[in-house]
Amino acid sequence: MKPPRAPQVKALVFDVFGTVVDWRGSIIREGRLLGRRRKLKVDWAAFADAWRAGYRPAMARVRSGELPWTKIDDLHRMILDGLLPRFGVRGLTEDEIDHLNRAWHRLRPWPDARAGLAKLKRRHVIATLSNGNVALLVNMAKHAGLPWDCILSAEVVRHYKPDPETYLGAAGLLGVRPAELMMVAAHKDDLHAARACGLRTAYVTRPREYGPEGKVDITREPAFDVHARDFLDLARQLVR
Amino acid sequence: MKPPRAPQVKALVFDVFGTVVDWRGSIIREGRLLGRRRKLKVDWAAFADAWRAGYRPAMARVRSGELPWTKIDDLHRMILDGLLPRFGVRGLTEDEIDHLNRAWHRLRPWPDARAGLAKLKRRHVIATLSNGNVALLVNMAKHAGLPWDCILSAEVVRHYKPDPETYLGAAGLLGVRPAELMMVAAHKDDLHAARACGLRTAYVTRPREYGPEGKVDITREPAFDVHARDFLDLARQLVR
Repeated sequence: MKPPRAPQVKALVFDVFGTVVDWRGSIIREGRLLGRRRKLKVDWAAFADAWRAGYRPAMARVRSGELPWTKIDDLHRMILDGLLPRFGVRGLTEDEIDHLNRAWHRLRPWPDARAGLAKLKRRHVIATLSNGNVALLVNMAKHAGLPWDCILSAEVVRHYKPDPETYLGAAGLLGVRPAELMMVAAHKDDLHAARACGLRTAYVTRPREYGPEGKVDITREPAFDVHARDFLDLARQLVR
Repeated sequence: MKPPRAPQVKALVFDVFGTVVDWRGSIIREGRLLGRRRKLKVDWAAFADAWRAGYRPAMARVRSGELPWTKIDDLHRMILDGLLPRFGVRGLTEDEIDHLNRAWHRLRPWPDARAGLAKLKRRHVIATLSNGNVALLVNMAKHAGLPWDCILSAEVVRHYKPDPETYLGAAGLLGVRPAELMMVAAHKDDLHAARACGLRTAYVTRPREYGPEGKVDITREPAFDVHARDFLDLARQLVR
């Protein structure tokens, strides 16, 4: 007896920070550009890591209800305002701080991302499903040439991942059943939460997300439907 | 003394039904395809006009609170279920009715739309701002090759145009001030409502929206910032 066939995947939603774009390398690069211009001596790798480390706790304050809905641009800025004195960065103008905060709108894709998305787009609807706000994701796509069919964001459902409202909201907006939607992420917790909502899951390895010395568990987990090295490998497995 | 310069337009949002796509010609075409297959004798032009005529009253029931939030796919289906017996269409399967209802996902663009949008996209963020639901707009874009940077819909803010929440919500999601956002539409009432919210406005003439004998007032109104014959003319005026 053949096993029952899983429903066809109609749309793919992608985590963005770390999965599509290299936030760490991009923030380091932007920091160095600023540092050269303003003659700052800062460990920009440590700065990038500290900025990102503030991200989950900030979202947790929104998820718990301690903060009202606050978009990522504003959470990034709250964290940044604390980091600048901590790293000895003084004397920046408001325009310079705002430009640095918007470095997250200019993150660069992993080398395989653009070509992989173009291949996946031929067969599937491809959309973001990121905690980044809509403007950030639109500007990033324009800057980096990411060919999304649709920009979906936590901002639209006013819940941050891994709240179930994000995954189920994306399925509703795309007009597909959860089992027809595949979440693509380099983060296992994101995929476990998507799977608990009935979505299909594709794990993509991004071993350098935390830099050349960073540690990432890229072992295969049987709970996920697909395990891919990168987006080109994902396209090879999904677009036949 | 020079007049104060208006702020730069950063993003364009587009009405879709009638402005980007020819809903009437497309529905007639889909009706004829179905009619040939099922040997139906129906005046499909009258059918298309009747379907569209049900649209505003159905949205008005949502806007007034008489109906809870209901997306356009479901409003289209409610109207269609009433139209089929009225036009003597009987014996369709559920799949056929659903396929006909989704004709709105397959509407065809006006001849200048794709090329005009591609030009406008080089300089501006271009997004839909339609009462159509997200899945409808995503499927339409994929089907018709419309190169949107972002799909914005009444569904995202849970208000139908011309409620101010739609225009102001779009500005908020795109991260621009209302005066930096331009509404593009072939419908003057849409533009007047956008203007009342502080948006810039571009009127595009679509004299054939209601067919070769339909009447459309395409006179120039000084209240609008731009008056364009079509999207290529709009691109000539905005992208210099």
